[in-house]
Amino acid sequence: MGHWDGFKGNKWRTSVDVRDFIQHNYTEYKGDDSFLEPAAESTEKLWTKLQELFEVQHEKNGVYDMDNNIPGTITSHEPGYLIKEEEKIVGLQTDVPLKQAFMPYGGINMANHSLVANGYETDDEMTKIFTDWRKTHNQGVFDAYTPEMRAARKNKIITGLPDAYGRGRIIGDYRRLALYGIDFLIAEKKKDLSLIGNKVMTDDVIRLREEVSEQIKALGQIKEMATYYGYDISEPAKNAQEAIQWTYFGYLAAIKSQNGAAMSIGRVSAFLDIYIERDLQSGLITENEAQEMIDHLIMKLRMVKFARTPEYNQLFSGYPIWATLSLAGMGIDGRSLVTKSDFRILHTLTNMGPSPEPNLTVLYSSHLPEGFRTYSAKVAKESSSIQFENDDLLRANWGSDDCAIACCVSATVMGKDMQFFGARANLAKAVLYAINGGVDEKTRAQVAPKYRPMTGDTLDYNEFIERYKDIMDWLAELYVNTLNVIHFMHDKYAYEAPQLAFMESDLKRTFATGIAGISHATDSIMAIKHGNVKVIRDEEGFAVDYIPQNEFPTYGNDNEEADAMANWIVEYFMAQIKRQHTYRNSTPTLSLLTITSNVVYGKATGNTPDGRRAGKPLAPGANPSYQDGKFLGEKNGLLASLNSTAKLDYTNALDGISNTQTINPNGLGKDDTTRIANLRNVMDGYFDNGGYHLNVNVFTTDLLLDAQAHPEKYPNLTIRVSGYAVKFRDLTAEQQADVIARTSHSKM
Amino acid sequence: MGHWDGFKGNKWRTSVDVRDFIQHNYTEYKGDDSFLEPAAESTEKLWTKLQELFEVQHEKNGVYDMDNNIPGTITSHEPGYLIKEEEKIVGLQTDVPLKQAFMPYGGINMANHSLVANGYETDDEMTKIFTDWRKTHNQGVFDAYTPEMRAARKNKIITGLPDAYGRGRIIGDYRRLALYGIDFLIAEKKKDLSLIGNKVMTDDVIRLREEVSEQIKALGQIKEMATYYGYDISEPAKNAQEAIQWTYFGYLAAIKSQNGAAMSIGRVSAFLDIYIERDLQSGLITENEAQEMIDHLIMKLRMVKFARTPEYNQLFSGYPIWATLSLAGMGIDGRSLVTKSDFRILHTLTNMGPSPEPNLTVLYSSHLPEGFRTYSAKVAKESSSIQFENDDLLRANWGSDDCAIACCVSATVMGKDMQFFGARANLAKAVLYAINGGVDEKTRAQVAPKYRPMTGDTLDYNEFIERYKDIMDWLAELYVNTLNVIHFMHDKYAYEAPQLAFMESDLKRTFATGIAGISHATDSIMAIKHGNVKVIRDEEGFAVDYIPQNEFPTYGNDNEEADAMANWIVEYFMAQIKRQHTYRNSTPTLSLLTITSNVVYGKATGNTPDGRRAGKPLAPGANPSYQDGKFLGEKNGLLASLNSTAKLDYTNALDGISNTQTINPNGLGKDDTTRIANLRNVMDGYFDNGGYHLNVNVFTTDLLLDAQAHPEKYPNLTIRVSGYAVKFRDLTAEQQADVIARTSHSKM
Repeated sequence: MGHWDGFKGNKWRTSVDVRDFIQHNYTEYKGDDSFLEPAAESTEKLWTKLQELFEVQHEKNGVYDMDNNIPGTITSHEPGYLIKEEEKIVGLQTDVPLKQAFMPYGGINMANHSLVANGYETDDEMTKIFTDWRKTHNQGVFDAYTPEMRAARKNKIITGLPDAYGRGRIIGDYRRLALYGIDFLIAEKKKDLSLIGNKVMTDDVIRLREEVSEQIKALGQIKEMATYYGYDISEPAKNAQEAIQWTYFGYLAAIKSQNGAAMSIGRVSAFLDIYIERDLQSGLITENEAQEMIDHLIMKLRMVKFARTPEYNQLFSGYPIWATLSLAGMGIDGRSLVTKSDFRILHTLTNMGPSPEPNLTVLYSSHLPEGFRTYSAKVAKESSSIQFENDDLLRANWGSDDCAIACCVSATVMGKDMQFFGARANLAKAVLYAINGGVDEKTRAQVAPKYRPMTGDTLDYNEFIERYKDIMDWLAELYVNTLNVIHFMHDKYAYEAPQLAFMESDLKRTFATGIAGISHATDSIMAIKHGNVKVIRDEEGFAVDYIPQNEFPTYGNDNEEADAMANWIVEYFMAQIKRQHTYRNSTPTLSLLTITSNVVYGKATGNTPDGRRAGKPLAPGANPSYQDGKFLGEKNGLLASLNSTAKLDYTNALDGISNTQTINPNGLGKDDTTRIANLRNVMDGYFDNGGYHLNVNVFTTDLLLDAQAHPEKYPNLTIRVSGYAVKFRDLTAEQQADVIARTSHSKM
Repeated sequence: MGHWDGFKGNKWRTSVDVRDFIQHNYTEYKGDDSFLEPAAESTEKLWTKLQELFEVQHEKNGVYDMDNNIPGTITSHEPGYLIKEEEKIVGLQTDVPLKQAFMPYGGINMANHSLVANGYETDDEMTKIFTDWRKTHNQGVFDAYTPEMRAARKNKIITGLPDAYGRGRIIGDYRRLALYGIDFLIAEKKKDLSLIGNKVMTDDVIRLREEVSEQIKALGQIKEMATYYGYDISEPAKNAQEAIQWTYFGYLAAIKSQNGAAMSIGRVSAFLDIYIERDLQSGLITENEAQEMIDHLIMKLRMVKFARTPEYNQLFSGYPIWATLSLAGMGIDGRSLVTKSDFRILHTLTNMGPSPEPNLTVLYSSHLPEGFRTYSAKVAKESSSIQFENDDLLRANWGSDDCAIACCVSATVMGKDMQFFGARANLAKAVLYAINGGVDEKTRAQVAPKYRPMTGDTLDYNEFIERYKDIMDWLAELYVNTLNVIHFMHDKYAYEAPQLAFMESDLKRTFATGIAGISHATDSIMAIKHGNVKVIRDEEGFAVDYIPQNEFPTYGNDNEEADAMANWIVEYFMAQIKRQHTYRNSTPTLSLLTITSNVVYGKATGNTPDGRRAGKPLAPGANPSYQDGKFLGEKNGLLASLNSTAKLDYTNALDGISNTQTINPNGLGKDDTTRIANLRNVMDGYFDNGGYHLNVNVFTTDLLLDAQAHPEKYPNLTIRVSGYAVKFRDLTAEQQADVIARTSHSKM
């Protein structure tokens, strides 16, 4: 069979256009999950072996093995296998399963620190090379940082900056490799290169020309890497196995050479389904074999590991790497993009049990076929391993039905957008800076400019809000400038050639900022406005605590005023972000997303006027507060909480709004069928209502308490935290306590 | 004695201002050379040893020894000595005299090629490091080049591009190290860093912040390097020995870590003289000891060596490194800057014989004291090792009496200007492109756009000149854009931190372009205009030769029309250069300078309409043609030739106008006293007349013919070629032939 035999459409044949190929060739599936097959024998063997390795890894604190003297590149390692003869889809990051590569480009100190922290030796020669001769991203950033940037970082008003780790979140459109083969992609890139710049060699043109040359080199290396595994990927894939394998090779090149925080794989289900469907139709494979290949692909994604430092693990707990894989979604022509392979991929959570990775993400719409909506609700309920994003909002705001999620909630259009990812500003701490004249409440350092502090015994709303705006103005400016430094240096010292090689040469770049502590900022302002907040001062007159004397409306209870306040903060801050010069004139966006860093951020944030206690975790992402401050917390149940979140305006937070909810199974109904239907209905309503994202956990707090006490009983208990899933036992003790403290809704 | 005891003036004490220090403290010397002392015993010993090493080096084709696995950095080598106990001034590039360091940053291929070409092995580990992990300048440039740039380079319409070697020509103001000590300089750089950028982090601000951080690191490394030699350079120099040693350490850091084409040391004589004078006054040293220290410094500069490829040696023959040292000059207050140390430095050519390096350059003016003008004319006559530049033009055009020459004729203001150096455009070849519609006459490739060729049997002037302008427009644009790529990548991959560390943080940057073949371009146009040039075509109708049928005026004979034509070409081309966007918004300049590349350029250039034969060398720099074409050549003697050159407008060629002349001693007079006086008078007249530069050779062609036939008789015969001096025996056979073919003026 020729590689394109039987495929329809023309446009995609002569220039790279994967979406056009999909639209002409995919088979929408409106049925239920009854066609799904159990795990093949090979899958069982491989998964058993992998679980043994996972167990070793767990006993060794998350590190199976580490390299210390082979810088990870696309071609740096010999081929590696789990059980060679059983693997339908091959390719490991290093030569040994779960062994973590040595990746010094982001920063030799971090790479060495992660070695030492995990009991490995550093290599003197590598240290010399990446100190004296080859500068790293981290060194570049700190060379250019201003003292103000360092202070903001140190005092954690801006946190999680990707200056000590790879920025990640860049998704190559790896499907291109399967559809076109690597030779065509190289030829297209060469054509692009010939068209970059004309007559005037500005820095921008020169940089882009160099980058595309690097991409071409990376494509050549990927071709070489594939030969190590016995594959010639010059030409397009000829069947489903090759299509899956080629696609994975593209992704593999990225994870072999880059350790970005989030290494997402994008959206592959409808694409791969076309090949599977063709092979099924021609009798080349059975459904069992189709599921086998999908299971094997997913198993590979469960194995991705990067060397990290303890500090990093505290911020992003449980070793996430965000191999985010986006499923389903609607087409702009009204058909859904649901295929049998969307079912097959979700079915891996049954065949191989729950798993944090890949970060399975359903692009949801109430217009999706009921069979799929029901099945995804079922899997969510049973595994607590998947998340949902509002595909109606994605299509409307990104102008494409080929979006995928990078990391947790960040949308990009496959092959056309890249993101400059960047951390978050702590707007709960900013409330305290506004009160204390820019002095940090923890360190007492003057971090923001010497604005006038508030001196009254109680907090005056008008006085406060002017100061809060000044602080947000200052913070937005400093934040964007800090990210400008980071992305300049990242491009300079740790450019992601293998990802960008599978994207347009001159693409749209978004510049992602983020807010942490939105609920506490909102509730604090509501307290100041309505709660007659009494200020407690220390002997130096510094405000250290706040006692709201009256009740006040809070975010998360479907209260119009509080929810509008949350929106105002986001809108105001985003407007300040937009005013700034952004690196490469990228398009600024903003997220309400903390991942698990809410714990670390909270630890660095003093008492807040809403009644939250110093050091306690911030509510994650856009979640309402679940703290036990006198007037705090979600009091009106799941639907009120969802309504509040749904009111946040996505157009001001195009990098995503993260919402994590835990539902007591009994709150959903008496039996599984009812529970599944109710969960589906809740999602239909929430997303129709404009909600952007939902992490769904279905279990009781008691289960978590038992898992906390008896971790050995729950080796695979997987839960959704802010934006990703994690094995409960891999969370830090603090993170476990935070997750347990969160609201588990027992009423709708 | 405290380090600044007895020094006058204030401004220089609190912020870096070496010129202010000099102006307040130097002692002008108006006497003659009678105070000079012969070589000290230590000097004799060291020089004898060094000559032995030079002999070994000569036998080994210019390479005494080479490193292949220690990338040269400021601190990469153990200290090295010639004869440790005899050296008053210490410091070698590597740990062994004349051993060439391994410098891969410009390009690992070049570094390895120079190893292999000289019979050394390449190191696999180094090759891997600088191929897989640490990208080099050369690779970056070729990643960004356009096909048009590659074609222009390959066909040699643009030549000598610093894409395969370091750009050089950046002079740190190393005097700063002596005057202030390194701690103060570090503190000043930190202050600068705190003031770079405000509120908006553009790429320019980020880049400069990183660069200044790199400079601060380099200063720290220089401090460390000095400790290897037993010196603590934290504080200012306390005496003349330390002042010379500190200054040299600054320069040494540059030549240890950078292999730029021209590594000039700048202007140090009046500065060092202040310390010497203070020590002499206080009885700390004698004149003999003063000369000893100067001799030792100069000996160090004679030892500088870089690993080069055979291709590079063809272009710049005789291993020049342009340790250009600028002497004398006038002050803007009317005093001359001539000190006894200017005499002492010239006197090294007597104490240790003639030498190509350092490239001693007298900043000349008829207002300099007669004693010095006479002495410099004497040394020029006796050594043929020095060059002269018009200091009146420098002060008027650069606004400073603290200029120094980088390389041959490029002026910069010490510590305040840096140069982006860049090659030259062959405007003689451009004449042929204009005739042949952009097709290269050697390769028959279409290099320039497909302009209309000239098809007549003879060349019509008006037809030609429109085409020539089109070619120059195209060429200027392409040339500047090519240099933009090079300098972007040079800053990115081979930044000169140790040089820039001794300069202002945000300095003036010039963007140096150049013209090769000005005399042949001029004469060809004059031929077309007046000579009724008959075109000889091959069977394809392609113009391959030109026969001027009438006599025509040529450049170099003081003919107004021809000289004006030369000026028009320069003015027109420079105007096109100025129209372009230049990297970092640098200020474009232009030189008429070919160095010895006139031979290689000529080889690549076909027959020209002036009668020059294909493959024959172009006249170097701004020199008039000395070819034997029927109507070509300087026919009116030395003064007519100088008059023509002097008419070239320096304001259009601020990167310098190179003029090399050879005078038969008998043409200068009957005895040495007359000859010296006449040479001085010729220079007074030439420079008063607006001449910019003069390379003075005083010998007969017979001498050169004898040296060509019997090289062993003339191991130290040094001659001035275009912009530098060279040992005659080190020139390639082709270069020797060219030098012999040049006019030796026997009449004034």
